[in-house]
Amino acid sequence: MAVVVHKFGGTSLADSACICRCARRAASAHRDGHRVVVVVSAMGKTTDKLIELAGQVTDQPSQRELDMLLTTGEQVSIALMTMALHREGVDAVSMTGAQIGIITDEYHTKARIRSIDTTALDAELDRGRVIVVAGFQGMSSEGQITTLGRGGSDTTAVAIAAVLGVGSKRGGPGGVCEIYTDVDGVYTADPRIVPNARKLDRIGTEEMLELASLGAGVLHSRAVIFGQRYNVPIHVRNSDSAEEGTMIVRETPEMEDVTVVGCALAAELGRISVRGIPNTPGMQADIFERIATTGAIVDDIIQTEAGETANVSFMVNRRDLPDVKVAMERVLQEAGIGDMSIETGLAKISAVGVGMRTHAGVAATMFRALGDAGIHIANISTSEIKISCIVPEGQGKNALRVVHDAFGLGNTPESSVIGVRAGSR
Amino acid sequence: MAVVVHKFGGTSLADSACICRCARRAASAHRDGHRVVVVVSAMGKTTDKLIELAGQVTDQPSQRELDMLLTTGEQVSIALMTMALHREGVDAVSMTGAQIGIITDEYHTKARIRSIDTTALDAELDRGRVIVVAGFQGMSSEGQITTLGRGGSDTTAVAIAAVLGVGSKRGGPGGVCEIYTDVDGVYTADPRIVPNARKLDRIGTEEMLELASLGAGVLHSRAVIFGQRYNVPIHVRNSDSAEEGTMIVRETPEMEDVTVVGCALAAELGRISVRGIPNTPGMQADIFERIATTGAIVDDIIQTEAGETANVSFMVNRRDLPDVKVAMERVLQEAGIGDMSIETGLAKISAVGVGMRTHAGVAATMFRALGDAGIHIANISTSEIKISCIVPEGQGKNALRVVHDAFGLGNTPESSVIGVRAGSR
Repeated sequence: MAVVVHKFGGTSLADSACICRCARRAASAHRDGHRVVVVVSAMGKTTDKLIELAGQVTDQPSQRELDMLLTTGEQVSIALMTMALHREGVDAVSMTGAQIGIITDEYHTKARIRSIDTTALDAELDRGRVIVVAGFQGMSSEGQITTLGRGGSDTTAVAIAAVLGVGSKRGGPGGVCEIYTDVDGVYTADPRIVPNARKLDRIGTEEMLELASLGAGVLHSRAVIFGQRYNVPIHVRNSDSAEEGTMIVRETPEMEDVTVVGCALAAELGRISVRGIPNTPGMQADIFERIATTGAIVDDIIQTEAGETANVSFMVNRRDLPDVKVAMERVLQEAGIGDMSIETGLAKISAVGVGMRTHAGVAATMFRALGDAGIHIANISTSEIKISCIVPEGQGKNALRVVHDAFGLGNTPESSVIGVRAGSR
Repeated sequence: MAVVVHKFGGTSLADSACICRCARRAASAHRDGHRVVVVVSAMGKTTDKLIELAGQVTDQPSQRELDMLLTTGEQVSIALMTMALHREGVDAVSMTGAQIGIITDEYHTKARIRSIDTTALDAELDRGRVIVVAGFQGMSSEGQITTLGRGGSDTTAVAIAAVLGVGSKRGGPGGVCEIYTDVDGVYTADPRIVPNARKLDRIGTEEMLELASLGAGVLHSRAVIFGQRYNVPIHVRNSDSAEEGTMIVRETPEMEDVTVVGCALAAELGRISVRGIPNTPGMQADIFERIATTGAIVDDIIQTEAGETANVSFMVNRRDLPDVKVAMERVLQEAGIGDMSIETGLAKISAVGVGMRTHAGVAATMFRALGDAGIHIANISTSEIKISCIVPEGQGKNALRVVHDAFGLGNTPESSVIGVRAGSR
């Protein structure tokens, strides 16, 4: 008897008929003898509608009250999903985040899970019940209702799989966390932009993490991190199809045979560049502590020295630019020196693969492909398994296609780019 | 500093603009220095929409899951109301039934309040905050989410007023529970049926209780009972108007000067009559214990003896008839004797007033009015302060009008019917 966690996203729960279809899937796993937990998001556009309602009341809703408001969406879903399971003849019970004992920190709208009490879960599973859990939500130790931020339901599903031992001996052989969504799995690139993109049968957690953080929307990076940390096998698949999707698994040596597994495009970026600030110890901390207070996610930090002073540039999402600009103006004001420039209209194209660790020449291939396509590269940044180039936003989609082609991702299951010496990228 | 509880029903919370209007009312009470608790229902038709969703999934929804589903409606309202109060510059905090410590029994969809922990309420009020409470909901001692059934938000409001000492020294002088609705108060009869019906400035709790149980929809009888038991002054008023509504107060001697304060019509009734069943001890208990399992509310039980056997008839709402019929068939089957008949198309017209205790002739006036109008009386039942007649449903509205006129309720503030000797009714 393996523990199987099914997570259904909002697009899979668009209406009551969709809910009944998903319930049949969970019922089938239950009849197969598994210990089944179902994690659900809010139905369809519910969350957007609730945010719109809040916007009609005030343009500065309290974070606590937003959480109070938004968690109702998942609560509606658990009740309906449980009713649908009952109709399938399955003994099932719904539970809110608070009821199941998902304890988070106290940061409303972006809380992090601190612990999950498995007492209630174990007791209900031992009774042979399917447990239907409200994703995205938890409770602070003070009893406040919190939400986990974007992708929160994915995180709930993987975290519950982890505490129930999926991927370890405790969860039983064959345990898995299935993330049901409206796409067939993880692709070598966004198939809406790259028509010959190919579905991956499996991908390493590190690779998935890089792709997820780049905005490949199928699975949130926090969920991938949980999965990686607790060794939870995650299966991303389509709720409308019986086909296998993409398994997100621990890396194996043969995965390094493939240099690049996927490419991703992140659009709507802005770059902030600060020039001529004193390169004193702690200067960088001053800057990024200040930006951290805005909640903006910063990426691709580059620093260059120019004598006594330094230039620092970094990327943020365009929607965060106004807040970051104000924060940076304060930093410069306090420093009494330096100036700032802001660029928008930028996108980031990235190639990801654990094979990069051992195969060289990847960077050169990517730069050549972009160069041949006449695409200007504004910035370059790399991690151990990723190369990213900042390009003009208008050329972003074309950049994704040419890089995807350059690594031969669309047509052959294995990348064809190998052989250049390490160090040259 | 008096404790003031404001309760806003669904019709007063139809959209975000309505919510903001109600919030201004609560904000004004807060600025006047009161300790303010706001109790809200679900917005407009939310509850109906949720029930419809459940109906799309299954025609036999679990009671527990229905409660899980329906409580989201009030949770949406508390979040939006609190945001609206924040916009008014008022420090406010929302709380679910569980958070506030409203402990109920475990009977889903019709739970009863066992206790309310005032620790959280007192703490937030001491901080000068307005507390916005989700009506209609509570939590069982096992942590299950429960609802209080029809009129549950009224009950929540009055119960909270009671535990905070409204009406006693603890609640401060001038404390009140204001029930905001879409009508101006309690009328001598339903003004949609009786055009010259008059709004009452005040009404005794016993009278209100009789009217509420007869379906005068402004306030649920359980709320009135709570108010009566804990001496909570209740003010029923219009959320769209600054006018005073109707105060529901403890009776005073001068209230007995008025014989009849109001009339009510309950439609869509059915009568079940059982004839020729053995009149053995416990027979009545056998019948009504069996009916109690259906959850149907039974009224106007009449028993007559016929030798060794007895005839029993009683009224139920038409929607409960099918279940009650099945239950009664079992009773007769077990008794092995007796037969049953069912009538529908009945209505009940009632006249209510504490003055009946001391003024006689009330019944005669009512029967004469109905007789003069050619209305057949099928059954008569009385309580200390109420007379009810079962009439054909098609004549119900006319019956209400003629009885209302007969007691002079429409035009003069005092009833004109007095003086006939006690005992003749």
